[in-house]
Amino acid sequence: MNGVTTDRERLLVIKIGGNVIDDPEMLNSFLKEFSAIGTKKILVHGGGKVATSLGNKLNIESKYIDGRRITDDETIDLVTMVYGGLVNKKIVAKLQSFHCNAIGITGADANLLPAKKREVKEINYGWVGDIEKGKINRKLWELFLENGLTPVAAPLTHDNNGHILNTNADTIAAVIATCLSKIYDVSLIFCFEKNGVLLEVDNENSVLPKLSFDDYDGLKKSKKLFAGILPKIDNAFDAIKEGVKEVIIGNSSQLTSLINHSGGTKIFSE
Amino acid sequence: MNGVTTDRERLLVIKIGGNVIDDPEMLNSFLKEFSAIGTKKILVHGGGKVATSLGNKLNIESKYIDGRRITDDETIDLVTMVYGGLVNKKIVAKLQSFHCNAIGITGADANLLPAKKREVKEINYGWVGDIEKGKINRKLWELFLENGLTPVAAPLTHDNNGHILNTNADTIAAVIATCLSKIYDVSLIFCFEKNGVLLEVDNENSVLPKLSFDDYDGLKKSKKLFAGILPKIDNAFDAIKEGVKEVIIGNSSQLTSLINHSGGTKIFSE
Repeated sequence: MNGVTTDRERLLVIKIGGNVIDDPEMLNSFLKEFSAIGTKKILVHGGGKVATSLGNKLNIESKYIDGRRITDDETIDLVTMVYGGLVNKKIVAKLQSFHCNAIGITGADANLLPAKKREVKEINYGWVGDIEKGKINRKLWELFLENGLTPVAAPLTHDNNGHILNTNADTIAAVIATCLSKIYDVSLIFCFEKNGVLLEVDNENSVLPKLSFDDYDGLKKSKKLFAGILPKIDNAFDAIKEGVKEVIIGNSSQLTSLINHSGGTKIFSE
Repeated sequence: MNGVTTDRERLLVIKIGGNVIDDPEMLNSFLKEFSAIGTKKILVHGGGKVATSLGNKLNIESKYIDGRRITDDETIDLVTMVYGGLVNKKIVAKLQSFHCNAIGITGADANLLPAKKREVKEINYGWVGDIEKGKINRKLWELFLENGLTPVAAPLTHDNNGHILNTNADTIAAVIATCLSKIYDVSLIFCFEKNGVLLEVDNENSVLPKLSFDDYDGLKKSKKLFAGILPKIDNAFDAIKEGVKEVIIGNSSQLTSLINHSGGTKIFSE
């Protein structure tokens, strides 16, 4: 930024969402591509539909208040099983088979992501956690990375009072990226089902290759962007303001292109 | 053994079974006691009844051939969720609340317990794994312990071909203990619902305080011991033959006494 070149290593923090997790073939090919990345890397995964379909079988209803999902006692057990157990360990075993030394974690493990149960204001979200960024033990993340391990984080944290908390995977990825940008040149990559930030929501060829904060401001005002992508972009700019080198948003089927800056939307500060 | 004193550190490898896991109060008090242990330590947990009751709700039948439990596709997903997710993460979150820096793992994580799917001979056990002792990366276990982490292992391994495998928790504890006895003075502690090896199965006051291999041989011949405990004792002697300093078998509600040699049955080589 200030013209000084550094010899800091590149670290990729890559987030995948439900669409990849729910499709075994897509997941397999994504994980193969992920394993082949030569730099240090971290994977953060969302939940996918398994929790919902298992919840249906067990008669655990999805609960909403004012359109917000609520995590009650039954639901936190369900997502702890599915995200922290089934999804996380399947990904880890698969990565191991591709010679990537993955280690599955939740925020409770090694206290890697200390959080607080969200305060009850208008809505009681239940067992939902907001990460306490200042309390993250960066040295342990570094220890894993420096010893050849690839952390694979499930979207779960803990409250230090013995409870697991449900936590948004995009936020986890952004927080980890920010924390580790103190020591690495971090690229944060949000993979999803679209090719990037689209100017026309149904046109996969309308990808914006780059998006600065000023551009974003203008596009928001003209209401051109798909509303669902706004929180992801807000997360991206937050991460950049706090030291992450770049954020790339794009299709999980194009991981290598995203990493090499030949696909997706690159979000940058100026 | 040879009269040379060493300054090797003590490491406790402690295994708890289903009876503790199924009882929240008992589990809580066990984990509190476990957290207070001042030496390096590893916890290995079994499954408990949650997998069976969840399996019943999901109409996943427990399958047996000739009295041996079979792990089919549905069952391995079930135990991956329950052992690797629900049980493991609840234990980790609870230990964190007691200021024990626990890290939950399966054998797939960081490739800590590489295994092989059991060969099909007379019986096809399904997704059951036998640990490949010679391939364990001891350095990683050591790295965790030397950095203040307490591994908490679920009874799951992996085959390096992308599959999670069901693996006996007693065996996992014995294998870890043996592997780490190269660098630590390891006490392997099997906690269960009885006070130790009992001379009379229904009399909790008939605990044998010590059991040598010769004693054991005699007791086996006279058929005095409860048949169910024989595999545990065989595991214990195997571990001792391979370098584990001592094995203690006793009640999970008496953890501190077991560690301090004032309870349970101590198994030793001569």
